[in-house]
Amino acid sequence: MTHNTEQNPTFVRYEHPLNERVRTYLRFESLLSQLHGSRQLEQKGNAQLFFKSLFDILELLDQIQIKADLLKDLDKQRSKLKQWLDYDNVDQSMLSSLLNDISSKHKALLAVPRLGQSLREDRFLCAIRQRFSIPGGSCSFDLPGLQHWLYASQNKRDSDIQRWVDDLSPLTAALDLWLRLVRDTGVKHNVVAKQGFYQDDAPDAELLLLEVPATSNAYPVVSGHRSRFAIRFTPFDEAQDVAPSLPFTLTRC
Amino acid sequence: MTHNTEQNPTFVRYEHPLNERVRTYLRFESLLSQLHGSRQLEQKGNAQLFFKSLFDILELLDQIQIKADLLKDLDKQRSKLKQWLDYDNVDQSMLSSLLNDISSKHKALLAVPRLGQSLREDRFLCAIRQRFSIPGGSCSFDLPGLQHWLYASQNKRDSDIQRWVDDLSPLTAALDLWLRLVRDTGVKHNVVAKQGFYQDDAPDAELLLLEVPATSNAYPVVSGHRSRFAIRFTPFDEAQDVAPSLPFTLTRC
Repeated sequence: MTHNTEQNPTFVRYEHPLNERVRTYLRFESLLSQLHGSRQLEQKGNAQLFFKSLFDILELLDQIQIKADLLKDLDKQRSKLKQWLDYDNVDQSMLSSLLNDISSKHKALLAVPRLGQSLREDRFLCAIRQRFSIPGGSCSFDLPGLQHWLYASQNKRDSDIQRWVDDLSPLTAALDLWLRLVRDTGVKHNVVAKQGFYQDDAPDAELLLLEVPATSNAYPVVSGHRSRFAIRFTPFDEAQDVAPSLPFTLTRC
Repeated sequence: MTHNTEQNPTFVRYEHPLNERVRTYLRFESLLSQLHGSRQLEQKGNAQLFFKSLFDILELLDQIQIKADLLKDLDKQRSKLKQWLDYDNVDQSMLSSLLNDISSKHKALLAVPRLGQSLREDRFLCAIRQRFSIPGGSCSFDLPGLQHWLYASQNKRDSDIQRWVDDLSPLTAALDLWLRLVRDTGVKHNVVAKQGFYQDDAPDAELLLLEVPATSNAYPVVSGHRSRFAIRFTPFDEAQDVAPSLPFTLTRC
């Protein structure tokens, strides 16, 4: 979940996946970022968030085979980039370093037999996992073993956390790289929604990035089918209407 | 979830409810503390934690009628304390201020027709609540309305949060007071678990508080029936045994 750290932001950024694969990628990206953001347990509440994120990731890994899709997508990016080899006006050293980066992350991801397997088999994580799916079910009296662990030495906790996070790092690294490559391809356009509505084509695009003026009382609801998409701006405060003409920026990535 | 903020804590504190009512109270206390601890949304991850806590509280309120129990328990405390009125060696002004405090919190809780009702009816909260029960289901593209709200002005967000938290304040205040009164009644005893086992009586006690040396490799699993309870210390690291003689402190509250 992105959130506002500025006092008065000019734009609200919305990202929308245009297919199921990318929807999954963004879901994992969001949980992995939450996991990394909460690993400093000294901050109150972080322990809850850290374990909740970890178990949500395991839950998604059980439901979704992300590895095969991501390997295929990295391969496609590599093929695309290889077309630029030997072009004079392309920085060849940057290109080859990028290709190496893709190769090494592809290889590392491919080498994992089953993503999250050692987390699934971790005795401590197994013992506490189930309680985290119960609303308010992970109190200290529900999980005295977790309470013991939370009072363990900083060293012990840091090394456990590092091991758990490391287990997901081939996924994290491959996902971050692919999303960065895709996001970097986008070109930003200034467009206008009329009567709160905008539609267009996005052939070959994976996701849309929108920047909507923060002063507008509307948020975009995106629907898409294949390469065609439609954006309907919905008033946040129902008492107010959406402006008949609403400018925003649109980036197809 | 209590957690370690000290570098080298001497004791690990465990609290264990001795009946279903207090189990519920501690569950609410833990969620309410998580709610208050995460209301500063500027800290990354707090928005997830804040709304998750809020919706978990609503879920529990739907399942459990805490209000009637808590009113009865406050009444009992009031009756107990009234026995000390007119005792010479009791600070009468402190006692009467405490009795007033109980009365006002009892009255405020009694006055709420249905706990959390305005949260259940809040249009914005309704719109986002369901996605929070899905693992990884509350990404920005799942909830563009939430994304819009997260970028709203600090004032707007603060006043919304204040309103939501205020709606639960009669519960929070009554619960905090009752738990404080109960916790204050306990007397700490030094005891020893033999072969990892300790049992005893706790007539009229609501909860147990244990302090176990942080250096011990064991955490307590408490089981209790009526006024009798048993504590079995379980090794955290299975390769190590629990000390044959394990001193700890026990407070019956």
